[in-house]
Amino acid sequence: MAATDPLASMDDGTRAALDVPSDLLAIDPEAMRRLGYSIVDRVVEHMASIGDQRAISEEEPARLRALIGGPAPVTPSPIADDLGLLADVVLRNQQHGDHPRYFARVPGPSSYPAVLGEWLATGMQSVASSWGGGSGPTAVEIIACEWLRDEIGLAPTCEAVLLSGGSMANITGAITARHLRGEGVIYLTDQTHASIKRGLLAMGQPAEAIRSLPPDEHYRLSASTLRAAMAEDRSRGLRPLMVVATAGTTNTGAVDDLPSIADICDEYGAWLHVDGAYGGPAALCKRGRAVMPGLERADSFVVDPHKWLFQPYDIACLFVREPGALERTFAMYPEYLADVTGSEVDLHNRSLELTRRGRGIKLWLTLRAYGLDTIGRAIDRGIGLAEYAQLVIEADPNLEIITPAQLGIITFAARGRTDRDHSLAAARLTADGYAAVTSTVLSGRTVLRLCIINPATTTADLDGTIERLSAYLA
Amino acid sequence: MAATDPLASMDDGTRAALDVPSDLLAIDPEAMRRLGYSIVDRVVEHMASIGDQRAISEEEPARLRALIGGPAPVTPSPIADDLGLLADVVLRNQQHGDHPRYFARVPGPSSYPAVLGEWLATGMQSVASSWGGGSGPTAVEIIACEWLRDEIGLAPTCEAVLLSGGSMANITGAITARHLRGEGVIYLTDQTHASIKRGLLAMGQPAEAIRSLPPDEHYRLSASTLRAAMAEDRSRGLRPLMVVATAGTTNTGAVDDLPSIADICDEYGAWLHVDGAYGGPAALCKRGRAVMPGLERADSFVVDPHKWLFQPYDIACLFVREPGALERTFAMYPEYLADVTGSEVDLHNRSLELTRRGRGIKLWLTLRAYGLDTIGRAIDRGIGLAEYAQLVIEADPNLEIITPAQLGIITFAARGRTDRDHSLAAARLTADGYAAVTSTVLSGRTVLRLCIINPATTTADLDGTIERLSAYLA
Repeated sequence: MAATDPLASMDDGTRAALDVPSDLLAIDPEAMRRLGYSIVDRVVEHMASIGDQRAISEEEPARLRALIGGPAPVTPSPIADDLGLLADVVLRNQQHGDHPRYFARVPGPSSYPAVLGEWLATGMQSVASSWGGGSGPTAVEIIACEWLRDEIGLAPTCEAVLLSGGSMANITGAITARHLRGEGVIYLTDQTHASIKRGLLAMGQPAEAIRSLPPDEHYRLSASTLRAAMAEDRSRGLRPLMVVATAGTTNTGAVDDLPSIADICDEYGAWLHVDGAYGGPAALCKRGRAVMPGLERADSFVVDPHKWLFQPYDIACLFVREPGALERTFAMYPEYLADVTGSEVDLHNRSLELTRRGRGIKLWLTLRAYGLDTIGRAIDRGIGLAEYAQLVIEADPNLEIITPAQLGIITFAARGRTDRDHSLAAARLTADGYAAVTSTVLSGRTVLRLCIINPATTTADLDGTIERLSAYLA
Repeated sequence: MAATDPLASMDDGTRAALDVPSDLLAIDPEAMRRLGYSIVDRVVEHMASIGDQRAISEEEPARLRALIGGPAPVTPSPIADDLGLLADVVLRNQQHGDHPRYFARVPGPSSYPAVLGEWLATGMQSVASSWGGGSGPTAVEIIACEWLRDEIGLAPTCEAVLLSGGSMANITGAITARHLRGEGVIYLTDQTHASIKRGLLAMGQPAEAIRSLPPDEHYRLSASTLRAAMAEDRSRGLRPLMVVATAGTTNTGAVDDLPSIADICDEYGAWLHVDGAYGGPAALCKRGRAVMPGLERADSFVVDPHKWLFQPYDIACLFVREPGALERTFAMYPEYLADVTGSEVDLHNRSLELTRRGRGIKLWLTLRAYGLDTIGRAIDRGIGLAEYAQLVIEADPNLEIITPAQLGIITFAARGRTDRDHSLAAARLTADGYAAVTSTVLSGRTVLRLCIINPATTTADLDGTIERLSAYLA
């Protein structure tokens, strides 16, 4: 092909670079297998024995730096040793969201089929950016999200995109609403997840165009308060843009009255965004679905499979009801993407992410591996475990229920004890390692909170946790 | 603990939920190991034989739906069969960014140590959100980013956060700049990555406050054009906020004149953001570093390890020079995070992401496993391969260089052939499967582009690719 030998005119730098062997980063296949198997063994052991370990551990910065820090590594270190350091030091020192007594914040009860799906996707460098460049991972993502959409009971026209978490999924929904409807006022409550307000400010929403409304006595967005706020804004010449309702708040599991809120949104032409990042999966079981009517009226809806759908981090799903709305908001056709855009779905046109790993693969495999009947039962068990915890707390004269069991979350307190007592009790149990528990603040009072969505949790785990907390607060 | 038997007052729904066995989602450990090993074997085979496979494949939507779609799965399917479907159908039908003849867009030459790190992190549900809830993964992330910062030659005060890709990392930098400096005009060129403009609009930057300047004849941001634009804006009472410079454009690998641009930024009080998402890793080798002076002057800098640092998707890194700047922009202290905020770094306060998987683990393991000497050589080989491609193209009388080899990227064209001819040639080779190649548009002309950063690529791979393209265009 070449008329002359290209090597003849090569400079020394190029020549030296080409002298680097093409297998420089390759590892002997036998060693690859051995290292890979060792991770499988380690993870299987982790999953089998997690309940016998601490629910959360923390290490001092200086000690961590001594073990894993130091100057930048110039020469190679043995991988097997480093994998040991990662497992024994790095990954030990964190909250174990997959531990059966991890009740803090929101657990992440990951499951093995999901891990397998993510492993395969990672090892084969999955990508779901354009149809032409990733038809397989794109199709899997679309199909898995359609299954979720239909089983959760969202509007059948909803289109979806997977993102890294509820924060990004909620903000992506808000950006879409603003793009389609124009600027306006956004309504939420102090029970709306705090990441949403942060996201709204980051997208340039003026703070004065965010109404943080007082919730009702059940920590829900009050329809009458919302209507009054919208009416007042309109009377001042402002335009209601969007309502952020919640299907399962992080604080109490409360579900907003979506049918009433949807009616108000219709009346005022506002976009209804429903944050089901935490609670959304509950719609996959009968008892959860019963407390969340109106999901089909959401203009946009978020659910995080890495919370209550048994996935490793990260995966969140945004649904938008109006077909093409995401593409109209996010489509981008630069010249170097010219060869990969076409009539099929290009998921990089549905959010701010361009390179997108195939997040849908693990979700698809999980739904297939268990089937939705089993998944619904696993979720219902979480709802039931929180109801059980409520009965245990009610039977303890030292304790009182603050908010009843709702979608796996219960809050309670010890009678006559201070805010600080409650914070300390949560911290003490967490430091002990038996369980991880956080306090929260409701109506100005610091209370204890358990989020119980891991089906591997037993009633004995709850007995032991509540017993210890009650004793600390006796 | 309980004064009475809580079970006595349990309703039927709760009782049925608790009858769901706690091991409902558990899988027999032997089966777990077998399934895990099968993925290891599959990935080892994939990595060993990728060069013998097609560089990219695409499947029809209807055929994919027939194979992996259908109604939502109610009952379980065998995992082993589904893993086969995922490997053979889903993950086959995509661009293989880790293929040695994948030269389109930006390859993703993933390496096995990085895969191992991600596997372990996934299996152990890694999380790097708060210090208290993830001191291990947080420390690993900080340490790995410090190594990169120092070896790339950024300012030593830079703090970092890992994100899902260049799009999110660049926008996070821009949000930080705006938060700290206030509203103003943002300057870029038509060679700036298109995802950045999309991100700026999403963060609420008015289109009229984005200046897309014409680049110089080498497709770089022109210092004189920039200065003139800033002067004009200032004379109109507008405030220059930020310049988006690029260290290695996606189109041509061009590196902007950072020292001159930094001087202008100093003069006008503008924030200098440098997008090194693609080219940044080149600073880890001597020849790359030589063409990127001035990186230490960046106020914020982005590099995507999932491009040229041998990582599986996704991982991008944002550095910000001013200590505490990220926290001042993104910190969020809602009440249910009360127990986990403290004096140590809470990475959820450095971007819009709250739940964050431990993305740093794979990067740390990769840097340790190879050492930076080897990694620098692997990167230098990519630079050299593009230089080799240039020599081959120059030796072909049918072809002409459009932009010379720069940081692994070369663009070229056939003399006397149309835009469409070039698009078709790229599409034909890609459809053939031997290699994946994309065209791009430079100064209105459609040309061919090779991005050659996989050290496993051989000169024979380049000979074969250029020979075929030349023949298609003869």
